[in-house]
Amino acid sequence: MDRKTLIAQIQKKKSFLCVGLDPELSKIPEFLLDTDDPLFEFNKAIIDATKDYCVAYKPNVAFYEALGIKGWQSLQKTLDYIPKDIFTIADAKRGDIGNSSRLYAQTFFQTYNFDSVTVAPYMGNDSVKPFLEFEGKWVILLGLTSNPGAMDFQFQHIVDHHFVYHKVIEKAREWGSADNLMFVIGATHPEKFSEIRRIAPDNFYLVPGIGAQGGDLEGVCRYGFNRDVGLLLNSSRGILYASKGNNFAQRAGEEALFLQRQMEKLMR
Amino acid sequence: MDRKTLIAQIQKKKSFLCVGLDPELSKIPEFLLDTDDPLFEFNKAIIDATKDYCVAYKPNVAFYEALGIKGWQSLQKTLDYIPKDIFTIADAKRGDIGNSSRLYAQTFFQTYNFDSVTVAPYMGNDSVKPFLEFEGKWVILLGLTSNPGAMDFQFQHIVDHHFVYHKVIEKAREWGSADNLMFVIGATHPEKFSEIRRIAPDNFYLVPGIGAQGGDLEGVCRYGFNRDVGLLLNSSRGILYASKGNNFAQRAGEEALFLQRQMEKLMR
Repeated sequence: MDRKTLIAQIQKKKSFLCVGLDPELSKIPEFLLDTDDPLFEFNKAIIDATKDYCVAYKPNVAFYEALGIKGWQSLQKTLDYIPKDIFTIADAKRGDIGNSSRLYAQTFFQTYNFDSVTVAPYMGNDSVKPFLEFEGKWVILLGLTSNPGAMDFQFQHIVDHHFVYHKVIEKAREWGSADNLMFVIGATHPEKFSEIRRIAPDNFYLVPGIGAQGGDLEGVCRYGFNRDVGLLLNSSRGILYASKGNNFAQRAGEEALFLQRQMEKLMR
Repeated sequence: MDRKTLIAQIQKKKSFLCVGLDPELSKIPEFLLDTDDPLFEFNKAIIDATKDYCVAYKPNVAFYEALGIKGWQSLQKTLDYIPKDIFTIADAKRGDIGNSSRLYAQTFFQTYNFDSVTVAPYMGNDSVKPFLEFEGKWVILLGLTSNPGAMDFQFQHIVDHHFVYHKVIEKAREWGSADNLMFVIGATHPEKFSEIRRIAPDNFYLVPGIGAQGGDLEGVCRYGFNRDVGLLLNSSRGILYASKGNNFAQRAGEEALFLQRQMEKLMR
């Protein structure tokens, strides 16, 4: 999906919600465990209930990979089930030397047909570029993450720059454009969004950390919006596990609708 | 495999060679393409030919993942085929927020039974620790990588430290010990090994970049050895693709033997 289409979807749905599809066998309603593919059945119900309120789905690959081949099958079926007008993100955080990164890109853009993949920046240029070479596909590069460990390295002061994550965002903008490069910027740092917007005004940001991780939707929008909205706000656990009962999908839909309504207000 | 056993294997075989199992359909001998599982058949022949000269095997997961479910099956079969007295490394470069990293750890330590996995440090403490919590398993954390992109972020000067990669190594040593934490240090920077040894004297280093990437074996050993040897030197392409003909396995064995002989000399 290209940038223009993504922006049109956001305007049409009055939503910049991304739903994280991170199903865990220990957390999904028990009656699903008797089905042939509990992860897919769970995702299917979640997608049916939330698809009108979100513009993106983001399966975190760890949740599927951990189940071995069965997990990858669930991921494939989930991806096939997502409506074609919704942006898809493989949250895989890959990154390796050039020829290996090329294979990871092939995995998520060709073997599976995701629109985008999250990429880890530590190995630099030749670890990121192979992902950017796929026409019509997107890299979502880790910039400032939402977890406590972000303090360890991303917030290191570097000479001539404020922090490591600034340098990552600046450098990466030389490799890709606002048409194929987004950044992960955690909602747990709403006060950082205005300074990051100065470095990367046009790029979309994928923003995890609303809800379970304690991020602040309004603060993020105040400092993070650009003229195209420019944000994809992710919620996973808050939607998926709103209820553990038979009404889990209905409750997930309600949570997604609640977030969409807040977003609609903020977009005015 | 624990540290004591690994060191004993190195002493017994007079080798600290790690063979990278990175098979590509476009590079393996043509006659293997007619078999049911070309990747596994290739690896099997490589393992048979090299197992006496190496102490570790390192499949890079990208090469398997790119083929979808068939690739994961080849990986599983390869892992099952590796003799039990040889250390196994899932070169996966994973890393995510805590609950996702835990699932990645589960993937490689339980779903597949690897001894170790390579981990990317960018997300810090809570992205690395879940891997360290698996008894008897190892994290191999990216420190200073062998690729050109290492210059982009790893070599950034940070305030009060020389470089980002110094900080990564120092910090990580607070999270794990020499019994469960190694570092990736690329052979393309042999002059850096003595300064890194000052920061991390006891840890093993996994050293890629010998051969195809131009690293220097003697320089690496001069500056990188500790009293336990403390190095696992990886060679992938130089061994796997020594020949594209029917004699590929024999030539791979010869290359591995050649490296083992050099290592034996350097260990004296």
